Amino acid sequence: MNNAVSASDLSLFKSELTAIAEATNAELDRLLPPVAGPEGRVVDAMRYAALDGGKRLRPFLACAAGDLFDVPRARSLRAACAIEMVHCYSLVHDDLPAMDDDDLRRGRPTVHRKYDEATAILAGDALLTEAFAVLADPATHPDGAVRASLVAELARASGAAGMVGGQMIDLAAATLNLDEAGLKRLQNLKTGCLIAVGCRMGAILGAASPFVVEQLGQYGMDMGLAFQIADDVLDVESTAAETGKATGKDAAAGKDTFVSRLGLEGAKNLANTLALQAGNHLASFGKKAQLLQQAAMFAVTRRN
Amino acid sequence: MNNAVSASDLSLFKSELTAIAEATNAELDRLLPPVAGPEGRVVDAMRYAALDGGKRLRPFLACAAGDLFDVPRARSLRAACAIEMVHCYSLVHDDLPAMDDDDLRRGRPTVHRKYDEATAILAGDALLTEAFAVLADPATHPDGAVRASLVAELARASGAAGMVGGQMIDLAAATLNLDEAGLKRLQNLKTGCLIAVGCRMGAILGAASPFVVEQLGQYGMDMGLAFQIADDVLDVESTAAETGKATGKDAAAGKDTFVSRLGLEGAKNLANTLALQAGNHLASFGKKAQLLQQAAMFAVTRRN
Repeated sequence: MNNAVSASDLSLFKSELTAIAEATNAELDRLLPPVAGPEGRVVDAMRYAALDGGKRLRPFLACAAGDLFDVPRARSLRAACAIEMVHCYSLVHDDLPAMDDDDLRRGRPTVHRKYDEATAILAGDALLTEAFAVLADPATHPDGAVRASLVAELARASGAAGMVGGQMIDLAAATLNLDEAGLKRLQNLKTGCLIAVGCRMGAILGAASPFVVEQLGQYGMDMGLAFQIADDVLDVESTAAETGKATGKDAAAGKDTFVSRLGLEGAKNLANTLALQAGNHLASFGKKAQLLQQAAMFAVTRRN
Repeated sequence: MNNAVSASDLSLFKSELTAIAEATNAELDRLLPPVAGPEGRVVDAMRYAALDGGKRLRPFLACAAGDLFDVPRARSLRAACAIEMVHCYSLVHDDLPAMDDDDLRRGRPTVHRKYDEATAILAGDALLTEAFAVLADPATHPDGAVRASLVAELARASGAAGMVGGQMIDLAAATLNLDEAGLKRLQNLKTGCLIAVGCRMGAILGAASPFVVEQLGQYGMDMGLAFQIADDVLDVESTAAETGKATGKDAAAGKDTFVSRLGLEGAKNLANTLALQAGNHLASFGKKAQLLQQAAMFAVTRRN
């Protein structure tokens, strides 16, 4: 999408993204062990939802942000897994018949198709709950105030003033006739907050000042919005085989998107601008922020 | 149910239950302010689910347990509201068509009947999330380690190893042919853990030793099981007008209950035994535990 950036510039990012995704998968597997007994079914569904899927972009951002402050990866990875549990729970609930009614997710049956609706609701609930258990555990950070701060951050990003609020708006979006500012707010709430919170949590784990936490958060918000606008573009330009999910759904649902509002070129330009703006928030870190700089470029150059 | 206890013995309990319920309603109203904008709908649904309903037994237990350690009510009330948010979210999700499919709750339309299914799912999600935000806030306790510990306690009681796991078992209960031990485990997970966690949190807010936290937790588990067995008895003996919800549902659903397993008298005897056993865990507190002692008796003498 951004022709000024060549694919070779993203090699560091791509190898780290893969490495962190593998570490995240292993840690989630450890954090969500199978359980015997009749309640084991919900744990199976949690594992089905959380393991072995997705780019693990949010875990990447938490770890890469932590790297800026030399946070041990063992700690940032726990924060990363908590965020990913929230992300995965939101996908499980969003896919339900009463919400987006999706049969496929990452090329596999959605949780309510693989199990049943009740199990999917419960698995989502339990993943959300477990995310806070992970953050509150002393293994995440020896300082209780840091752990409580991480819990507060994740709750704010995920709740009615964040992700859930965004999903509520999205469900009404077809009737709201949102303008560009309304679309930005919808996306910032629905996906931006949870992308940004990983960056903020990396900084909090590193005892960064509130100002620096905010800088990382701004990077995350701009990067996240660029990522979502790129999603709208991909929804129009790509095929299901490339993205692993149904495409053209937004237009079919009559929802306004950045592409329907700004046109294909306008949406691409806005995404590129946001990706550059995201990088500007990291200027004070210089070369050390290379990984996050490449991530912002990836957001607007990816094909899936 | 327990003829050895006269109604007049519970006067202290009844006045405190009312007072704490009113304080809980006011605090929840403050913690969940209405929100303008298109996401306001989910906040309205959260308020509908959380305000002005129920006995507030869990908040009572958190406050009464805190009283044993002279915890300021302003603190125990925040913990109480967090637990109540989790309790209310669980009711919203349990009532969904994919779960128990209930139209009425406390004599009013359930959230998905009043709003819609998607809004009910999201309102439950956001109430669960907000519970952890409340606990993580410094207003709950100045010591971050205490706040993180409260988060860990609530998450453990609510997740796959607690309430959600119990609900998963309950959904399969009609086919499991549970014996008495299986029924006890189901109820301990589904409702006991969340009742006990209030007692535990009151003790944690009061810097009690792990041994004493465990004593309070045992009181809560026994009291909670007594309460649930009494529910089974009421389901058989009472009318919808008395309990404010449909009765006779367990038998109609073909589910084993303590009454179907032990008979009406056997179930009553077990409930009474558990209520007395609950009180025994409080022996070391003497007269100071009078309120919690009366609560255990109330569990088995109430008519709704």
